[in-house]
Amino acid sequence: MISIGIDMGSVAAKAIAYDGKNIISKVILPTGWSPKETGQKILEHFLQSGLMGKREEAVIVGTGYGRIALPFVDKKVTEITCHGKGAHYLNAGVRTVIDIGGQDSKVIKLDQKGSVVDFLMNDKCAAGTGRFLQVMSHALEIDVSELSQFGRGAVPRSINSMCTVFAESEVVSLMAEGASKESIAAGLLQSVVNKTYSLASKIGVEGKVFFSGGVSQNPLLVELLGQKLNTGIFFSELSQFNGAIGAAVIGYEALRNE
Amino acid sequence: MISIGIDMGSVAAKAIAYDGKNIISKVILPTGWSPKETGQKILEHFLQSGLMGKREEAVIVGTGYGRIALPFVDKKVTEITCHGKGAHYLNAGVRTVIDIGGQDSKVIKLDQKGSVVDFLMNDKCAAGTGRFLQVMSHALEIDVSELSQFGRGAVPRSINSMCTVFAESEVVSLMAEGASKESIAAGLLQSVVNKTYSLASKIGVEGKVFFSGGVSQNPLLVELLGQKLNTGIFFSELSQFNGAIGAAVIGYEALRNE
Ligand code: SF4
Repeated sequence: MISIGIDMGSVAAKAIAYDGKNIISKVILPTGWSPKETGQKILEHFLQSGLMGKREEAVIVGTGYGRIALPFVDKKVTEITCHGKGAHYLNAGVRTVIDIGGQDSKVIKLDQKGSVVDFLMNDKCAAGTGRFLQVMSHALEIDVSELSQFGRGAVPRSINSMCTVFAESEVVSLMAEGASKESIAAGLLQSVVNKTYSLASKIGVEGKVFFSGGVSQNPLLVELLGQKLNTGIFFSELSQFNGAIGAAVIGYEALRNE
Repeated sequence: MISIGIDMGSVAAKAIAYDGKNIISKVILPTGWSPKETGQKILEHFLQSGLMGKREEAVIVGTGYGRIALPFVDKKVTEITCHGKGAHYLNAGVRTVIDIGGQDSKVIKLDQKGSVVDFLMNDKCAAGTGRFLQVMSHALEIDVSELSQFGRGAVPRSINSMCTVFAESEVVSLMAEGASKESIAAGLLQSVVNKTYSLASKIGVEGKVFFSGGVSQNPLLVELLGQKLNTGIFFSELSQFNGAIGAAVIGYEALRNE
């Protein structure tokens, strides 16, 4: 028997299959307008993959904001719990998870088993989330994936406004004044690092730090955050699947306890 | 001798001339890239108007974020103080000033002489400011001046996100789902009213309320805010000049005390 974790995010749906030891399959789809249809597609993907013959041959756990739209799952678990378990699976030494997605940012503290001890979440303000970087790279007329490349080695122009809307005008003014895209890109990454640092400081950063979510794919940002937190930061190319991995691990634990 | 008040705002520069009793002249210019040049233009405007023969024939007081760029003024006074004095000049019974401009919002409590007793200001977050309404009317593909017209009589669609950035996406989604521009416009005005109410509640609203700043030019918003605060709201077609009026009144008081 296998366990499947589905993380129905606001932008992308991530799912993985787990055999109790290894991740044996993974899939990612845009969430689109209907999380329900996307969930159904994911289920069919696993049914056709040969990993399971019918629905009953897997335990399925849903997480993410769209988990309510998954009628076929055995269990629904909050994102916070799943992100904790996922990070613990990827690196058992992790005690702090910093997750910055497209729409929110969270800091989660874990015990040695990967259970959540405390957490703090911002989903009210776009500042310090992936959305901030998206809006700003649009203003800079570069792709969000180029921010690190532009920012590396540049002297950062500091961005005074924390607010995404006001910072956007600031970037436009800085460009009009002739500031280089490189220095602005470096300033923007520093701004997200500062915001993340202030969120993390409220809850306290302990032990090994795992950085997940789409924003963790910015290599320069990871470096700058490490410098600011004065610690090494662990991340994984699977970190986008972190929530789904946690869901699958929780599903497997439930199986084992049956 | 006359008194001139100049309010160098982030978007517009407002100035008025005051003879101790009446406003005898007013001028408004876009602030543009250089508040310094704009200030010089205003000075020349008054010199050429015949109201004063040379610079020494007037006392000049500067206020607003760009007041530091006015080397020729006799005195610089904070916006908060000037808005209080201006509101008191326009209506001596006013005890609470709610000012919502393009980039900030403030609530000021006054004593019976128009001096500031307490105030609260938001200039960090675009939500609840004119900027919010500007971004949203852009998303609705209408002009910001049409919001009241569209919203009047419509059943408001409530907007869940307080954040300007997230609310913008919400508006785009609502439109894609077929919600009417009328219902969304009504929902957006309600959202600004709620945000203003929560700012005002923190400091407490007492006595007669004066509503100033660009956002006070939305008639439906004024009505909705009055309903929410359960009080009549006083506003003036001169409210855009409120800060400049206060500066001129303060200048005149200084003259009288010399
Ligand atoms: S500060 Fe800016 S980004 Fe944050 S909630 Fe306010 S409008 Fe949104």
